[in-house]
Amino acid sequence: MHFEQDASSKSYLARLNDFMISHVQPVEAECMQALAEQDHADFKSWQQLPQITALQQQARDAGLWNLFLPDAELGQGLTTLQYAPLAERMGRSLIAPEIFNCNAPDTGNMEVLYHFGSDQQKQRWLAPLLAGDIRSVFCMTEPDVASSDATNMAATIEEDGDHVLVNGRKWWSTGLGHPHAKFAIVMGVSRPQADKHQRHSMVIVPLDVAGVEIERMLPAFNSFDPPYGHGEVNFNQVRVPRGNVIGDLGAGFAIAQGRLGPGRIHHCMRALGAAEYALQLLIERAASRQAFGQPLLKLGGNAERIAEHRMAIDQARLYTLSAADKIDRLGVKHAMSEISGIKVVVPNVLQRVVDDAIQIYGGAGMSNDVPLAALWTTARALRIADGPDEVHKAMVTRTELKKYRQGDKS
Amino acid sequence: MHFEQDASSKSYLARLNDFMISHVQPVEAECMQALAEQDHADFKSWQQLPQITALQQQARDAGLWNLFLPDAELGQGLTTLQYAPLAERMGRSLIAPEIFNCNAPDTGNMEVLYHFGSDQQKQRWLAPLLAGDIRSVFCMTEPDVASSDATNMAATIEEDGDHVLVNGRKWWSTGLGHPHAKFAIVMGVSRPQADKHQRHSMVIVPLDVAGVEIERMLPAFNSFDPPYGHGEVNFNQVRVPRGNVIGDLGAGFAIAQGRLGPGRIHHCMRALGAAEYALQLLIERAASRQAFGQPLLKLGGNAERIAEHRMAIDQARLYTLSAADKIDRLGVKHAMSEISGIKVVVPNVLQRVVDDAIQIYGGAGMSNDVPLAALWTTARALRIADGPDEVHKAMVTRTELKKYRQGDKS
Amino acid sequence: MHFEQDASSKSYLARLNDFMISHVQPVEAECMQALAEQDHADFKSWQQLPQITALQQQARDAGLWNLFLPDAELGQGLTTLQYAPLAERMGRSLIAPEIFNCNAPDTGNMEVLYHFGSDQQKQRWLAPLLAGDIRSVFCMTEPDVASSDATNMAATIEEDGDHVLVNGRKWWSTGLGHPHAKFAIVMGVSRPQADKHQRHSMVIVPLDVAGVEIERMLPAFNSFDPPYGHGEVNFNQVRVPRGNVIGDLGAGFAIAQGRLGPGRIHHCMRALGAAEYALQLLIERAASRQAFGQPLLKLGGNAERIAEHRMAIDQARLYTLSAADKIDRLGVKHAMSEISGIKVVVPNVLQRVVDDAIQIYGGAGMSNDVPLAALWTTARALRIADGPDEVHKAMVTRTELKKYRQGDKS
Amino acid sequence: MHFEQDASSKSYLARLNDFMISHVQPVEAECMQALAEQDHADFKSWQQLPQITALQQQARDAGLWNLFLPDAELGQGLTTLQYAPLAERMGRSLIAPEIFNCNAPDTGNMEVLYHFGSDQQKQRWLAPLLAGDIRSVFCMTEPDVASSDATNMAATIEEDGDHVLVNGRKWWSTGLGHPHAKFAIVMGVSRPQADKHQRHSMVIVPLDVAGVEIERMLPAFNSFDPPYGHGEVNFNQVRVPRGNVIGDLGAGFAIAQGRLGPGRIHHCMRALGAAEYALQLLIERAASRQAFGQPLLKLGGNAERIAEHRMAIDQARLYTLSAADKIDRLGVKHAMSEISGIKVVVPNVLQRVVDDAIQIYGGAGMSNDVPLAALWTTARALRIADGPDEVHKAMVTRTELKKYRQGDKS
Repeated sequence: MHFEQDASSKSYLARLNDFMISHVQPVEAECMQALAEQDHADFKSWQQLPQITALQQQARDAGLWNLFLPDAELGQGLTTLQYAPLAERMGRSLIAPEIFNCNAPDTGNMEVLYHFGSDQQKQRWLAPLLAGDIRSVFCMTEPDVASSDATNMAATIEEDGDHVLVNGRKWWSTGLGHPHAKFAIVMGVSRPQADKHQRHSMVIVPLDVAGVEIERMLPAFNSFDPPYGHGEVNFNQVRVPRGNVIGDLGAGFAIAQGRLGPGRIHHCMRALGAAEYALQLLIERAASRQAFGQPLLKLGGNAERIAEHRMAIDQARLYTLSAADKIDRLGVKHAMSEISGIKVVVPNVLQRVVDDAIQIYGGAGMSNDVPLAALWTTARALRIADGPDEVHKAMVTRTELKKYRQGDKS
Repeated sequence: MHFEQDASSKSYLARLNDFMISHVQPVEAECMQALAEQDHADFKSWQQLPQITALQQQARDAGLWNLFLPDAELGQGLTTLQYAPLAERMGRSLIAPEIFNCNAPDTGNMEVLYHFGSDQQKQRWLAPLLAGDIRSVFCMTEPDVASSDATNMAATIEEDGDHVLVNGRKWWSTGLGHPHAKFAIVMGVSRPQADKHQRHSMVIVPLDVAGVEIERMLPAFNSFDPPYGHGEVNFNQVRVPRGNVIGDLGAGFAIAQGRLGPGRIHHCMRALGAAEYALQLLIERAASRQAFGQPLLKLGGNAERIAEHRMAIDQARLYTLSAADKIDRLGVKHAMSEISGIKVVVPNVLQRVVDDAIQIYGGAGMSNDVPLAALWTTARALRIADGPDEVHKAMVTRTELKKYRQGDKS
Repeated sequence: MHFEQDASSKSYLARLNDFMISHVQPVEAECMQALAEQDHADFKSWQQLPQITALQQQARDAGLWNLFLPDAELGQGLTTLQYAPLAERMGRSLIAPEIFNCNAPDTGNMEVLYHFGSDQQKQRWLAPLLAGDIRSVFCMTEPDVASSDATNMAATIEEDGDHVLVNGRKWWSTGLGHPHAKFAIVMGVSRPQADKHQRHSMVIVPLDVAGVEIERMLPAFNSFDPPYGHGEVNFNQVRVPRGNVIGDLGAGFAIAQGRLGPGRIHHCMRALGAAEYALQLLIERAASRQAFGQPLLKLGGNAERIAEHRMAIDQARLYTLSAADKIDRLGVKHAMSEISGIKVVVPNVLQRVVDDAIQIYGGAGMSNDVPLAALWTTARALRIADGPDEVHKAMVTRTELKKYRQGDKS
Repeated sequence: MHFEQDASSKSYLARLNDFMISHVQPVEAECMQALAEQDHADFKSWQQLPQITALQQQARDAGLWNLFLPDAELGQGLTTLQYAPLAERMGRSLIAPEIFNCNAPDTGNMEVLYHFGSDQQKQRWLAPLLAGDIRSVFCMTEPDVASSDATNMAATIEEDGDHVLVNGRKWWSTGLGHPHAKFAIVMGVSRPQADKHQRHSMVIVPLDVAGVEIERMLPAFNSFDPPYGHGEVNFNQVRVPRGNVIGDLGAGFAIAQGRLGPGRIHHCMRALGAAEYALQLLIERAASRQAFGQPLLKLGGNAERIAEHRMAIDQARLYTLSAADKIDRLGVKHAMSEISGIKVVVPNVLQRVVDDAIQIYGGAGMSNDVPLAALWTTARALRIADGPDEVHKAMVTRTELKKYRQGDKS
């Protein structure tokens, strides 16, 4: 047991940190401002910011590209655990992940294609994603059912000769608004009578195929998150070649399980980076602003709250890193409890620290003059995205009960 | 001691309820949609919705107008305690308060003019406010200091012959974006050397006077709250007649104290109405949506949370009503602890119930398809508006310490 | 709606307060010490303290006797609501309730006999209880089942000619250790096939009847609570006359429901008195003891916690008083949600304030040098006694769901 | 970074686990019963249980002795991190630590003597402690001051020729009631004018020296914790040779700092073992006991609470292990924030899981029929022992503020 990152991870972190300070931070405020303006415009007019495009090229040149991908040739060959602190560092900035081609949902989609895609799929869709030339979408959640229970899924992916037919309505399909988005990975039911883990399929649906009807972007607490956005899309008798099915018909559930492990780590580490940033903002303001003759830090329970956040963040980080280690060493299946546990713990830690930071900033904390309002809605949305807290707690409990049924008591 | 509202209050509540069901609810969704569209437009283009204008006329005709004002001729003669359940009923709808001319900050401004205004001020400014012909603004909070400590206030109101000169920057000045807004009540320092409770003044500043520079509307968690809005405004050598000073120079603090008592009750009761509405939405969805073979209600701790919200809401309501009763019977000064206490308790109760309701709704809860996202940002903003939780807790503690210093121990 | 106690209640409170200060407080420490000594002795040696016996006589003489009983002749004719503040006052002292003949379980047993007892039962058992000449026991909870679900009850009360036969094991039978305890009211199943609300009976069992086997006193967090105690008792073929059945066979559930309403108010008000006392102790110590150059009050979140307790106590008190009012005006059946709600809220409020007070006192808070350790175990036990929090929350939720099923939404 | 224990630690854990199951568990209930009986007797009659004495010999023979001591000859040469899981395993049983000579306060005292004692002190006092032949006491906390602030300490250790003179009153001196207790390490002020970190000394005081007046044992929530106990002791002009001073006069603070690091890990790991045990008890009962037609597990929020405890325990364990690793690799000084952080987090985690377990057990949970009441008071006491939560939070905050003052922001 050892609690220090290895040399490779530390070296990447140092380089990433330098890049962030030298290249990203100087343009961050203007980018956030430009995105806020896009937020109020029709999504069809959204553009990738030129600053981002330029920074992507710099990151590529600096060897800070596709850091998330364990493959040493396509990515940098970092394990989930080695990548974790890099994701945390990126999480301090809302614009950073895409600069390093490490943003959701593209990372998850790249992982799916990397692990389960055919050679043809890799060439056609993975290669340009890895190059950052196109963006992609993941379509799973549906508006008319509780999507946290996969057996509720209503969309269908049916065989139709050498094609499959996709029907159904999806929403919260992240990335659907991006001007570079070229395809979606869509999940649907192919074999309704099969065992519940073998019913679903995943299929690549190019967005320009007939029947793909993007109906609107959805605001999450009033923000549309340009230029990615979260779309509501109807698949109306959409026909794609059978070769677009990932793995095979019926393999959807297994692919989804594999997809979520590392992605959960990325999400949580970014959220912890955000939490550290919020704590830093809190402390800076509390130490400098005066009321009743003292810095805010000295008033009420403010000082104590700093300790509570430090303890919570440190624990949540260790929990996430231990889950990453378990994924790397034992595989996702052996880390299901932790993968659910961190999904509950981390967004709540982030929400609480941002909540307190907002209190310290007062009105400014609600405005967009500081990034706390954006972090606040991010934190709140994270407690729902990818399954609400409650569903993940149920998973953690299930593991406990199984353990005790097996008499593992010592 | 008696826990039932009297006949008059109950009768008004029944009439208000009928009006809400018959007239407001049918147009609520379309109004919310129209406001969401204004939210993304330049504030200079904001309009009061024609539906609201029409409903205001109906409310006036129905005798459901200025219900908040204790005066029997100008209002309906209801005490703070009698009005409280009406405010709660209005709070179930985000558009209701202005329909009955019971919306902040106009109610507070009307109270100030009613209690402290000169005859001339009443005729010139109170009368059209009571008629609903104009809207008004309250300018207190400043961007550059912790405004929860009034002694930090930097804006000045200085004597200048038979005029006063107003200088300073204010923000979170609610109502500043309204097309009908005609004047602001501005608070500033007149006598920096006086006792800290006799330094400040309040003055009426018409918005069309030279030097009033509205710089922007501020988003609160991404929403601009049209058509009222929260503005940042610079008062740059603004000259207004001395007769615009309310009460007298130096009376600002005392007026502010008097202003906040009933207004706090209104705010809290509306928030409790919102909390009841959120709880209703939570229960409806939890009872009807299925996952894992059961209604959400049966899953995890969902059922228990309903009890926790019921207990919290009922307690918070009683606390608020008891504060209202204390204001009516003993005056604001004797209810300072409760007036601060409810300001802490109620927005937190609202935030928690909305938080859980959003979890039950999943993605829909973050969107604007249900009003929960709007209630969520309302709740969060309420914890800062009019003093952050922490400042009010300090006030409650101060009262306790005073009590114990006086040896009141039995 | 009105939030001040009436003249009669206030007058009794003033007299009770005087009595407490003049007569009870001077002997409280020595009584607590004497009880702590009994705590470590065999329960068969427990004695009622002579100080208590003397104070009971004084209380009787002062007209502060049986204050809990609404009957004007047998008690003082106070409603539940009028009595509530008196119970709170008594709750500041762990020895006070029995001084005024207002202690559990005797109050509940007296109420049962008063409302449901035959003339003969009243004469034989109620009269000496009212006089304070004997003590009594209530036997409901059983060791082998989850007793919060009454349908689990295993003890039986079977007809046997003009007698009934009582069999079964009970525990947490409060009062069983008292040297003056003469009888128990025992609940058991008479008609296992009947509707679940008509299965149970209550019967008076004199403790000297053959087959009543007191096996031990149970410690609650290491305290045996002399001289009352909580016993485990086996009823082994116990035969008592049919005339000892209260009401009738099958009436047990209805009697139990009636019994718990006012009793719950008493318990909760006493707990609120204890909470006020703990808050007073907290403030006194925090204001006087120094660390790091300041009174503890100024350190960390201590000052803020005082506000949180004040807000919580005031809300919980209003909630309890409103439940009392509902019982008085509408009857127990219409106050079921509140009666459960206060049972959850109040003991938790008490536990939290005592918890913080202990932190302020440090080691002293764990010892018996201050009464906080005793209040702590009292609070903790209250969260289980008379149904655990979870069962009462389920009741509150049930009421909500019923309300919404009936479409009561406005 | 690596999250698995090494082979040596795992091997010891397996052997310890076997020993616990084979030798300790079979006698645990009878030992707890015997201790409960001693609890009610005069402390002068307390005895070490013969079962414990026998098990100590077996543990010694099995090489499971002094596991806590990093020295390979005197102990087993395990690092703090390697020992941590062994401490956790012992923590599942309240009688285990002393069986392996790993109980407080002897472990801390042995560490002090091991690191700072003179050869003579080691021979005279450390050797028999390591052999388990005697027990010892640590005297730091004082009744008359807030002892969490070391500068408040009033006891004095003054030079007096070739002796020192010890004066002052201490309490919560753990181990003072043990029949084998032979000496105390006493902390006091020697140089009141020196820098606050160089004022204090530690001195070995044999308990049979004139002037050592043991006045009473203190109950912690009604339990006296025989046969160790927590004593109040007066040092009245106690004269001991100068050679009994540990390190040197003025070295007390530095020694105390060094003492607390590993000891804090031991305490916290044992508490986590207790938390795991309580969670196991909770699950077993919740899965087996029925109410309302279902196992308790299915009712209310019970299932969800299991997940919350699992997440909390796993996080707290990682936090504690990371602190152990920091102590081993970098030294106590570099782990001050974590050493304080775990002291806050772990006892609260334990308290919460025990609290919920008690709710599941109902009345049995308060009694001594299951060990939950004992764990409850243990948990509660841990939040005060060795500094209350609030003091440790202040330490964590201090570290944060220092970090940010140094501009460490990336």
